[in-house]
Amino acid sequence: MPSASTFPKIYLDNNATTPLDDRVKTAITDALDLWANPSSNNENALKAADAIHEARSHLGNMFGVEKEDVVFTSGGTECNNWVIEGSIRAFRKKNNALIPHIVTSNIEHPSILEPLKRREEDGEITVTYVSVIPSTGYVTPQSIFDALTPATCLVTVMLANNETGVLQPVAEICRLIRDRLKENAPFLHSDVAQAAGKIPIDVNGLGVDAVTVVGHKFYGPRNGALIYSPKSERIPPMLLGGNQESGWRSGTENTPMIVGLGEAARIYNEASSNIETVLCQNRDYFEELLVKRLRNSHVIHFLGSPRLPNTSSVAFLDYPSHGCDLLEKCRTFNASTGAACHKNECSPILKACGISFAVASKTVRISFGRSTELAEIDTVVNELVELCSPKNEELELNGCNILLL
Amino acid sequence: MPSASTFPKIYLDNNATTPLDDRVKTAITDALDLWANPSSNNENALKAADAIHEARSHLGNMFGVEKEDVVFTSGGTECNNWVIEGSIRAFRKKNNALIPHIVTSNIEHPSILEPLKRREEDGEITVTYVSVIPSTGYVTPQSIFDALTPATCLVTVMLANNETGVLQPVAEICRLIRDRLKENAPFLHSDVAQAAGKIPIDVNGLGVDAVTVVGHKFYGPRNGALIYSPKSERIPPMLLGGNQESGWRSGTENTPMIVGLGEAARIYNEASSNIETVLCQNRDYFEELLVKRLRNSHVIHFLGSPRLPNTSSVAFLDYPSHGCDLLEKCRTFNASTGAACHKNECSPILKACGISFAVASKTVRISFGRSTELAEIDTVVNELVELCSPKNEELELNGCNILLL
Repeated sequence: MPSASTFPKIYLDNNATTPLDDRVKTAITDALDLWANPSSNNENALKAADAIHEARSHLGNMFGVEKEDVVFTSGGTECNNWVIEGSIRAFRKKNNALIPHIVTSNIEHPSILEPLKRREEDGEITVTYVSVIPSTGYVTPQSIFDALTPATCLVTVMLANNETGVLQPVAEICRLIRDRLKENAPFLHSDVAQAAGKIPIDVNGLGVDAVTVVGHKFYGPRNGALIYSPKSERIPPMLLGGNQESGWRSGTENTPMIVGLGEAARIYNEASSNIETVLCQNRDYFEELLVKRLRNSHVIHFLGSPRLPNTSSVAFLDYPSHGCDLLEKCRTFNASTGAACHKNECSPILKACGISFAVASKTVRISFGRSTELAEIDTVVNELVELCSPKNEELELNGCNILLL
Repeated sequence: MPSASTFPKIYLDNNATTPLDDRVKTAITDALDLWANPSSNNENALKAADAIHEARSHLGNMFGVEKEDVVFTSGGTECNNWVIEGSIRAFRKKNNALIPHIVTSNIEHPSILEPLKRREEDGEITVTYVSVIPSTGYVTPQSIFDALTPATCLVTVMLANNETGVLQPVAEICRLIRDRLKENAPFLHSDVAQAAGKIPIDVNGLGVDAVTVVGHKFYGPRNGALIYSPKSERIPPMLLGGNQESGWRSGTENTPMIVGLGEAARIYNEASSNIETVLCQNRDYFEELLVKRLRNSHVIHFLGSPRLPNTSSVAFLDYPSHGCDLLEKCRTFNASTGAACHKNECSPILKACGISFAVASKTVRISFGRSTELAEIDTVVNELVELCSPKNEELELNGCNILLL
């Protein structure tokens, strides 16, 4: 079982990173002996190549594709930067006269938004950032479709938002675009980093050309993979060199990390339905307890929208200061807010979702893990209720309280 | 001590990759427990950040710079691709009208040559590939300087060639360019992947702006670092996102790999002069034995040039077939040739060094390690002498023998 036992507090920040599953640790440790260069021509090199081959199969199984559709990378950030760079490069080869255009949502991970912003500022591309609907937290397929132009080379919309947990209608977006544009559809990509290992993901069912995956969101290591649909045309590589990964991503293979990622995928494949059930039970138990104990003094964001089974984004309205301050006071558990703890800032993602500053600044993200226990949730809710009860207001006089300032 | 004990044969392919030092293995295994996201705000996250901090110091010490000058990456291929991408981007910001120009040698690693070739083919840049002198195996500083144009944004010359082991005059190149061009000098880079851990490297002494380093060439893991001179202007990041590595390389830190790389640097720092002596002793003993036993029937390439202490590039002239065939027959040890084993191909690097096809095709690269023993070299030379003696010619009748075809 995955274990957060090395952690001194109850760990409810699994969307930031998960502990390594003990079996993943063992797999990585064992694979440290597979140090030969997998491209070399010797007995141990073949063993390393075989281990990578096996890991590739586990990833393929996890996402319903063939092992040939899996390209290992250093992580999700590399995948997202690559998809942007590659789709621009492919487009330029075909349509040298047009400035490439990219469509995305306004709540993507910084590894999508930042490379787009830089290229926009440098005049290389134009970008349409489609806003999510404030009442639901997701974009509509039609709003994405309406943003397309003849120069659109990439549509990239995340499957699950890391802060709110809201699922975006990626399958519907892809269906609409493919139905209307047929073979003229741009490259369709989804960053599924936050969803993988929590809900089943079938790359073909989604209709995307490729997804971004990273191990440390599902009890694996920090490296990741870009996973293609078998029928998709591939984008050119970003990293060129020794032609590893069939030429799609050069660089001597990081065998122990790849093996660890494969093991994390294998573990998920073995128990996927049970994992989702457990996460959902934890999340629902927590939210029901909050309703019972805090009544109207809290808001669970996007309760009516399809969400990740493990994520609760909650504003504690009666707490007299901001969310970072609340978390600093918590003695029993770790969680996070969406942004750095500045008194006059709140999460740009919550802002992009149309949540007011007053509410966003009191919001905390609770992200449950596979091994969270109901008794732990009792402890956490007890502490939250204690801290958020009006009787504690006097304790806050020495704290920073932006709403009273 | 580093150990290749998991390897069934004597391992003389240390330029392809080295075994993990046992202390590096332990460091990585221990750091698997530091699974917290170093950017998070909790106790374990601080421990992970501290471990990364320490690793950064070890790398800084190894290359004579401050820890702030070390940017961790996924490996040497990423570093080299980044330097090319970044120097082009920086140049374009300043000189939008000129097509960027890059100067390099004709014997660089594919992770330099391939990204350059693609950008050249796509019309993004122009490139001058300066040839090494056939008699020495290195480029001259003047030939690099003569290739510069007002549009040159990057000069990149490796410190040691991976196949021949010949050291390139990087310090002299940088001195010449800086003396003449002062503050108009382009970005000066050296891929020191093959030299690091074998000879001392002082980034300031070399006069470069940055060097590429990768752990698995010096008993560390597959990840790497771009290491700047403290006084250099930095190139823009290639991977954008969560602003890890002070914004220079985004992506959640791969803590265990970074810690392992730091430990490999620490081990080198502790014993650097001894390491070079041991490597040199092994190489010299091997080459002296060859001269005694094989006399004029072999050529050690670039014997008169400054070379890495661990590398012998040797053509076995009396062997009746090509180098790959020779290595396939060897039962006692592993080494490599420079290219894939095709009968009508030889290493493009040896060709670029002006070595004839007949000689290049019979060349084998022997790369010694820190733990190679003199007795092992005796065994290896015995087998080589046995295989290369004319009496064995009859055995070759069933093998492929390109020179007799």
